[in-house]
Amino acid sequence: MNSFLLDQGILVSIALAVVGLAFAILLIRQIMASSPGNDRMAVIGDAIQQGAKAYLNRQIRAVSLIAIVVFAIVWYTRGSLASAGFVVGAVCSMVAGYIGMMVAVRANVRTAWAASIGSHPALKVAFNGGAVTGLLVVALGLLSVGVFYLIVEKMAGAKAAIDALIGLALGSSLISVFARLGGGIYTKAADVGADLVGKIEQNLNEDDPRNPATIADNVGDNVGDCAGMAADVFETYAVSLIGGILVGHLTGPEGNHSVLVYPFVLCGLSILSSLLGIGWVNFVKQKATASLVSGVAVAGVVSAGLFKWATDVMFPEAIVMAGKTVTANDLFYCALIGIVLTFVVVWITNYFTSTAHAPVRRIAKASETGHATNIIAGISVGHHATLLPVLAIAASIWGCWDMGGLYGIAIAVVSMLSLSGIIISLDAFGPITDNAGGIAVMSGLPEEVRKITDELDAVGNTMKAVTKGYAIASAGLAAMVLFGSYVEEVKAFLKLDVLVFDLMNPQVIIGMFIGGLLPYLFTAFGMDAVGNAAGAVVREVRRQIQLKPGILTGQDVPEYGQCVDIVTKAALRQMIVPALLPIVFVVGVAFLGKEALGGLLIGTIITGLFVGIAMTSSGGAWDNAKKYVEEGNHGGKGSFAHAAAVTGDTVGDPYKDTSGPAVNPMIKVVNVLAILVIPLFFK
Amino acid sequence: MNSFLLDQGILVSIALAVVGLAFAILLIRQIMASSPGNDRMAVIGDAIQQGAKAYLNRQIRAVSLIAIVVFAIVWYTRGSLASAGFVVGAVCSMVAGYIGMMVAVRANVRTAWAASIGSHPALKVAFNGGAVTGLLVVALGLLSVGVFYLIVEKMAGAKAAIDALIGLALGSSLISVFARLGGGIYTKAADVGADLVGKIEQNLNEDDPRNPATIADNVGDNVGDCAGMAADVFETYAVSLIGGILVGHLTGPEGNHSVLVYPFVLCGLSILSSLLGIGWVNFVKQKATASLVSGVAVAGVVSAGLFKWATDVMFPEAIVMAGKTVTANDLFYCALIGIVLTFVVVWITNYFTSTAHAPVRRIAKASETGHATNIIAGISVGHHATLLPVLAIAASIWGCWDMGGLYGIAIAVVSMLSLSGIIISLDAFGPITDNAGGIAVMSGLPEEVRKITDELDAVGNTMKAVTKGYAIASAGLAAMVLFGSYVEEVKAFLKLDVLVFDLMNPQVIIGMFIGGLLPYLFTAFGMDAVGNAAGAVVREVRRQIQLKPGILTGQDVPEYGQCVDIVTKAALRQMIVPALLPIVFVVGVAFLGKEALGGLLIGTIITGLFVGIAMTSSGGAWDNAKKYVEEGNHGGKGSFAHAAAVTGDTVGDPYKDTSGPAVNPMIKVVNVLAILVIPLFFK
Repeated sequence: MNSFLLDQGILVSIALAVVGLAFAILLIRQIMASSPGNDRMAVIGDAIQQGAKAYLNRQIRAVSLIAIVVFAIVWYTRGSLASAGFVVGAVCSMVAGYIGMMVAVRANVRTAWAASIGSHPALKVAFNGGAVTGLLVVALGLLSVGVFYLIVEKMAGAKAAIDALIGLALGSSLISVFARLGGGIYTKAADVGADLVGKIEQNLNEDDPRNPATIADNVGDNVGDCAGMAADVFETYAVSLIGGILVGHLTGPEGNHSVLVYPFVLCGLSILSSLLGIGWVNFVKQKATASLVSGVAVAGVVSAGLFKWATDVMFPEAIVMAGKTVTANDLFYCALIGIVLTFVVVWITNYFTSTAHAPVRRIAKASETGHATNIIAGISVGHHATLLPVLAIAASIWGCWDMGGLYGIAIAVVSMLSLSGIIISLDAFGPITDNAGGIAVMSGLPEEVRKITDELDAVGNTMKAVTKGYAIASAGLAAMVLFGSYVEEVKAFLKLDVLVFDLMNPQVIIGMFIGGLLPYLFTAFGMDAVGNAAGAVVREVRRQIQLKPGILTGQDVPEYGQCVDIVTKAALRQMIVPALLPIVFVVGVAFLGKEALGGLLIGTIITGLFVGIAMTSSGGAWDNAKKYVEEGNHGGKGSFAHAAAVTGDTVGDPYKDTSGPAVNPMIKVVNVLAILVIPLFFK
Repeated sequence: MNSFLLDQGILVSIALAVVGLAFAILLIRQIMASSPGNDRMAVIGDAIQQGAKAYLNRQIRAVSLIAIVVFAIVWYTRGSLASAGFVVGAVCSMVAGYIGMMVAVRANVRTAWAASIGSHPALKVAFNGGAVTGLLVVALGLLSVGVFYLIVEKMAGAKAAIDALIGLALGSSLISVFARLGGGIYTKAADVGADLVGKIEQNLNEDDPRNPATIADNVGDNVGDCAGMAADVFETYAVSLIGGILVGHLTGPEGNHSVLVYPFVLCGLSILSSLLGIGWVNFVKQKATASLVSGVAVAGVVSAGLFKWATDVMFPEAIVMAGKTVTANDLFYCALIGIVLTFVVVWITNYFTSTAHAPVRRIAKASETGHATNIIAGISVGHHATLLPVLAIAASIWGCWDMGGLYGIAIAVVSMLSLSGIIISLDAFGPITDNAGGIAVMSGLPEEVRKITDELDAVGNTMKAVTKGYAIASAGLAAMVLFGSYVEEVKAFLKLDVLVFDLMNPQVIIGMFIGGLLPYLFTAFGMDAVGNAAGAVVREVRRQIQLKPGILTGQDVPEYGQCVDIVTKAALRQMIVPALLPIVFVVGVAFLGKEALGGLLIGTIITGLFVGIAMTSSGGAWDNAKKYVEEGNHGGKGSFAHAAAVTGDTVGDPYKDTSGPAVNPMIKVVNVLAILVIPLFFK
């Protein structure tokens, strides 16, 4: 067994990925077997399904055009293998988002129906719907990287296979930037537009079927929070795994196989532990939050145990990497740091965004003195929320570097992301219950059903915030790995022994300033897009109500399709410019030289980390501050404080669901692209 | 003359500073000679004066306690000369703020009275009030640095004199952080509090004497926008000049005197051209904006001419600096870049914050759909506003480095800051007209007077935004100078030939992450302070109105002093933690090593530059978007859009007047402190 793991580690991990895939299919069958409810629900569920499918198909068509251009560039600069990798990465990223969303739009009606039986049955359907996405993302990620690597290695050797993986990384990153942005603009334009005109102007409740934008709003949850998120995490997972392999190859002892196989094995083992965690949530009956959190804890602890065993087996003797002696224990501790960092970030994000703690309550209290103080408090909370994650990331870099150098950091990132399977299960749970609630209201299910879905939705809100913290923190940790890969690639390509990026070099500083710009511009365009598209929704809803006043009395049926169409077009049109920014910046700065391009990478990660954490934290906190007021605090629903809290929540929408989370894939695109353009610019 | 300038350049520049001082005294006498208006105005003016004086005295007492501790540390680490420098810097920074404010609180009533004669007389009084501060800042800056340098040089030689100047830099930076923060918290807590309870709850106009917080609001303009700003720019000016001397000493040819004298000469000559600019505004009658802008243009063009002459005289032959041959033309072009950058930044900031251009109008339009869309648009404008200044700074670094290396950048910074005299005249003009308007309303002067002061106030708003852009942009450019000084100092102290801050060194990366945190935390505390103190003002005003309902009908006189007292205490208490943050971070990271501390400096400047530009731009744009709506657009005063625009303006208050501008002195404290602690930590 021992030598088998060493020799056939990649095959073993591929087998584990297949097991994960099989379980995902089992879960899909189980979800489909549960009742989809009554006819009225079927009609609504179908409208959401159609809208989501139509949007995603158009998004894929739009992105494909750009992908073809990039494909040609990759082919020209990096050859056919890398461009084949690009296609694999792009297709898998799309597939992960697509299937995950298709399951979610079927799980939502079933969750609504299950909620009429009880809370735990509803939790199970929604969670398993999310678990499908989680398992798909990790299984697809591991399979695509593993199978592609093995095939190319057989064809052209290990070096060529690793080079081609960079193409795969770019494909997945590029698609995920579009998916995150397009989906994010869609979901928040519909949400903000529906709220502005529905809640504030017409005094309708959330998901009231008289609101012409309500179907678009529910479609948005699926294309943004399901499909966009799945593509994003697929990218993060694949790029982390590839980063680990790349650093192992670049800094590892010549011909040592185990440093290449080790990242695969960690990912494979964590699929096993994620399955255990998913089983735990299904079979151990607890309150919603406790159930989900303990599921993650189970997966984390089991992973740690499996990692210890595998590391000892694979590294019986210390190895020398980049002049540093690294033992099995060193590597295990690096992997452990990844798991611990996951829990630390989850805990910190939960503190800053849950209604149970001081930050959210402070925002709720500030709402008493009006809109402006609510906003000031929310922005301040976002800024404060950067402290602990950044210190935790800095400490992790320190520890991993000390024990395992650059490879140690890469292993921590792989270990952190290997838990994606279970983490996404929590995240995707949110939009499913959100949709279930919407369907319950629109189809007139009893009040108690809505109460159950509302409770689950509140849990889902915090879980969603937590996943975003996890994604952006992993990007911070991965920064050094990706930057290190860039440096090693430049050295290898130019045959340099030493390459220094000195802060006293003005090229480096200029690169960092320009890199620092990227997250600022990128998020600005994202917010603009939501603002503009939401305005278009407001105008359309006003038009429909003016034309058919019977809509408000329930006599006329609104034309839901019009709003869906407007948001679809707006999202597709407005995602293009920001998604192309990273390409423009990387190519532009590459003309200034390799030092400037290196500076750009670090500049982007520094401001990106802060912008990402601050925006997602502020947004999550505003959302739950509104929920806290709605629970009856500071005057409750309809009070002056509530109006202010709704303003905060609305500002937080593009913060937490459009601009903030898209920073993570953007950072990756910049880094991977920089590695790819090396042969084009530096000679 | 030629050799005289070379030998006695410092004395010449000191003489020019004395000329500037003499003109400032002349202006003071001229202002005091104009009529202070009627008795009612005298009472109000006196109340503002007393409040401002009382606050500043208490602030000086509070800061002195901390300064004594820092003084002891400087003495211990750097000896008696540096600690003497610390005292000089601290005292001059306080004096600049103090006198500038004392003139402003006398110019305000006189401006109000002059406005009853006409627009240009009012413009002249207000502008000359500002010009006093401008001239004081540059004259005091140049005198303190020049005289202190000459004395210590006589006593202990050039090397000791330059070392002692670092103490002077720290003294001025430390005081200015407190002055900016304390004054910023004071002014915005009073402003936000007065608006929330006065405008929104009681429907009172700005400066209505029935509002118990109105005197505190007017005091705030003086302690924040006059005293705080003057201390801030004094610091920027002194630190830039010292940076130029330091880099000249560290990288210049051994024993070459002219590289040390050159920065002094540039500063001295610009005092002359600033005087010309001030004369232009006084004697050439134009519309307000045209008058002010052409005054700056005159000063800039004359400076450029004088610089060309002085550079040719002082550098008849090329010199070799850090291995690079630098000609007189090279140096002149670096100085010219500083002047051009000033104009570019002024133009860009004006574009993003003036009612005449697209960004402000976009925010105004977004107000139609409510509070939330106004906020989203404002934040987006702030993010967009970072692009051009950062590219301009990057281009300036590139050009200066190419021509003159680190010294070239230092010269560009000195040249940029040498124009402070005329730039501050514009800035301080704002709070004086703001106050004049308040006094006009409170003392019941005719409507036309208020109209004139309102017009001048709108001009003042844009000018204030412009100065903040100028200050933070200069900090970005100065970053490399200060970082370079740190590197050279470490090398000299540890006797290293080479010292590299490589981005592949995890210490450097960790330092940069932690440094990046500082501006985020610092601004968060600033916003919290404003939010908390404004809440206290709201409660106090509500209490007074409940106790004496006659206040609202004009039968009872409010207790203005209570609000002044509350804000005074809150500002003093809440400025402590954020102002100490830089000290805590520098000392904490110094334990990690010299590479981490170097990383911290760059990390702070990168996020600080973006946070600073984004916050001051958003704030200025929100302010003027409200003004644009009040001019009758999108429904005008009292409309739904107006309510949303007021929310944006209120959020913008701490953005543009508390947190945003305080980032600039904070960056300097961090850099100067890092240089000072070298002997303490690195052995």
